[in-house]
Amino acid sequence: MITIVGELVIGEKRCLNSELWHACAGPLVCLPTLGSRVVYFPQGHSEQVAASTNKEIDGHIPNYPSLPPQLICQLHNVTMHADVETDEVYAQMTLQPLTPQEQKDTYLPAEMGISSKQPTNYFCKTLTASDTSTHGGFSVPRRAAEKVFPPLDFSQQPPAQELIARDLHDVEWKFRHIFRGQPKRHLLTTGWSVFVSAKRLVAGDSVLFIWNEKNQLLLGIRRASRPQTVMPSSVLSSDSMHIGLLAAAAHAAATNSRFTIFYNPRASPSEFVIPLSKYAKAVYHTRVSVGMRFRMLFETEESSVRRYMGTITGIGDLDPVRWPNSHWRSVKVRYSCYVIVSALCNDHFSVTNDFSVYVMLFQH
Amino acid sequence: MITIVGELVIGEKRCLNSELWHACAGPLVCLPTLGSRVVYFPQGHSEQVAASTNKEIDGHIPNYPSLPPQLICQLHNVTMHADVETDEVYAQMTLQPLTPQEQKDTYLPAEMGISSKQPTNYFCKTLTASDTSTHGGFSVPRRAAEKVFPPLDFSQQPPAQELIARDLHDVEWKFRHIFRGQPKRHLLTTGWSVFVSAKRLVAGDSVLFIWNEKNQLLLGIRRASRPQTVMPSSVLSSDSMHIGLLAAAAHAAATNSRFTIFYNPRASPSEFVIPLSKYAKAVYHTRVSVGMRFRMLFETEESSVRRYMGTITGIGDLDPVRWPNSHWRSVKVRYSCYVIVSALCNDHFSVTNDFSVYVMLFQH
Repeated sequence: MITIVGELVIGEKRCLNSELWHACAGPLVCLPTLGSRVVYFPQGHSEQVAASTNKEIDGHIPNYPSLPPQLICQLHNVTMHADVETDEVYAQMTLQPLTPQEQKDTYLPAEMGISSKQPTNYFCKTLTASDTSTHGGFSVPRRAAEKVFPPLDFSQQPPAQELIARDLHDVEWKFRHIFRGQPKRHLLTTGWSVFVSAKRLVAGDSVLFIWNEKNQLLLGIRRASRPQTVMPSSVLSSDSMHIGLLAAAAHAAATNSRFTIFYNPRASPSEFVIPLSKYAKAVYHTRVSVGMRFRMLFETEESSVRRYMGTITGIGDLDPVRWPNSHWRSVKVRYSCYVIVSALCNDHFSVTNDFSVYVMLFQH
Repeated sequence: MITIVGELVIGEKRCLNSELWHACAGPLVCLPTLGSRVVYFPQGHSEQVAASTNKEIDGHIPNYPSLPPQLICQLHNVTMHADVETDEVYAQMTLQPLTPQEQKDTYLPAEMGISSKQPTNYFCKTLTASDTSTHGGFSVPRRAAEKVFPPLDFSQQPPAQELIARDLHDVEWKFRHIFRGQPKRHLLTTGWSVFVSAKRLVAGDSVLFIWNEKNQLLLGIRRASRPQTVMPSSVLSSDSMHIGLLAAAAHAAATNSRFTIFYNPRASPSEFVIPLSKYAKAVYHTRVSVGMRFRMLFETEESSVRRYMGTITGIGDLDPVRWPNSHWRSVKVRYSCYVIVSALCNDHFSVTNDFSVYVMLFQH
């Protein structure tokens, strides 16, 4: 049997600008294609809920024997969103576990043509204390301003213009852009303080500006990691959330019904919904053994990408009791050196000590 | 067997001012006493999660046959909190379902002496468009200012002072309080705009000030109801949240283990954790029948309390399929008239048409 996937639910709900969403999500984030087959890892989802609620699973979580560590699903819907309160980006996906018979069926995905759109022309700056002071302005690095902002008229004294930028919620923000000071600097003045206080930005948070192909200026936010005391939701306890995600996936697996998940790339960068093709290639067509070299991409705090070179020091189950035979973080790698692949924000370079991590074969 | 309850977990976590918490929660909210026996209604909890996520349960929720519609529990912990992002108040409770044997045991609660503290000296004002305009001030009704603010020195021209008020997170806010204009009014000027924009207040939200016994000025927020499109959490889908609360309660009931819930009085005013004594009195010692008069207290939008007089028109299960033999909203009442019991904020009075609601026997 040949299954043709033709359900297209894009359009009205997919209102967020894809470039802006990806710029906020970070350079390593790539959403799976609508209609494709994916592998869902409840273990990775659990890890993300733990990161989002700042609370690890404790011992009170029941077991769900019917829930395997990886669930092959059809991706029925994927939409991009931003949290109304915090502007944090997230994606919503609707998954349907496939029956063993459906998994065997030849699968011919329809042409969707909606690949994730990575931004090309943008800059991202981590805010300094001066950038966030009540009556201050935003100092923009010269190269960044020249690359992304419309050009200033340098015959004026001082050169200045009004910038209008749209945020993730399509709200317009107006800034006065001026080139002044000694030495001369690009500054956003009037309008900047209102933006900082409306978005409750603090030093350490990042702001990014995109100039897209439609000649629109867009802006997004990446918040610095929150302190561990912050509890982001007061709707449900973190234990009940963990139980909820496991019970929902177990129920969907048992009944082959759809379930909905949120993926927050900034809460934990490890994607837990992976294209089936990528998973199959890594797990079935890659031979790994202890001692082999292993390389992986990491995003640094400044949104650069680093390629780490390491050595596999172990292969096995991360949690053999709860999740036996899982491919989630089944490879232990010791890293010792890295090279910077791209530096989107700043050009920092530093040397770290050796460290070991548990990674997935299919991770980047 | 006599059980003495002696576990006191108050202190370090109970940092929120109880008066301020209750002022924000509303005049009808009363938390059960630590260590007491309570009745937990998963159905009511579900209703609250639906209100918080703005999404009703759909058909994909599995059944939990081991979960009764009311669960008799011991209340091991109760703490008051406020959401970091929105300042909305909520309570966290740790419950442990009692075994049938434990329910039969004579129960002698230890003296806890930590009854909920309702505020006495406070005012609450719904913000007008002028109160929230960018460069405006906050106009305080004369009686409210005289009751709650420290007295002004009227020998000054104009009379003015600096007020320092602490919010739910113990953050200090400074306001210039001045008495001026034609006719003379109490105004908060300098500092007010910063507060409005930091808390992202809009016209329709309410601000309340308390002057407590320790001569401290406290301030809290009650936000107007959010539009239905707002999704407050991007951690877990609302379906998974519903499954999570039911699965967590079912697991706790099956194993007599503790579970944690959040109660958001502003999301839905119906308390779903009720003192056992109140429940037993209403359910076992009150005879109700169709045609009887029934009265109930409601909080109005302006935080006044109204006593509605009605007639019982039906008694039965609200959801006989999922929750048979539940006392949650088992009484249908038609209300036709009401009297204002107390008017804490404003003195509005209006006449409504007849309306019918499903209520609990033990509700107020």
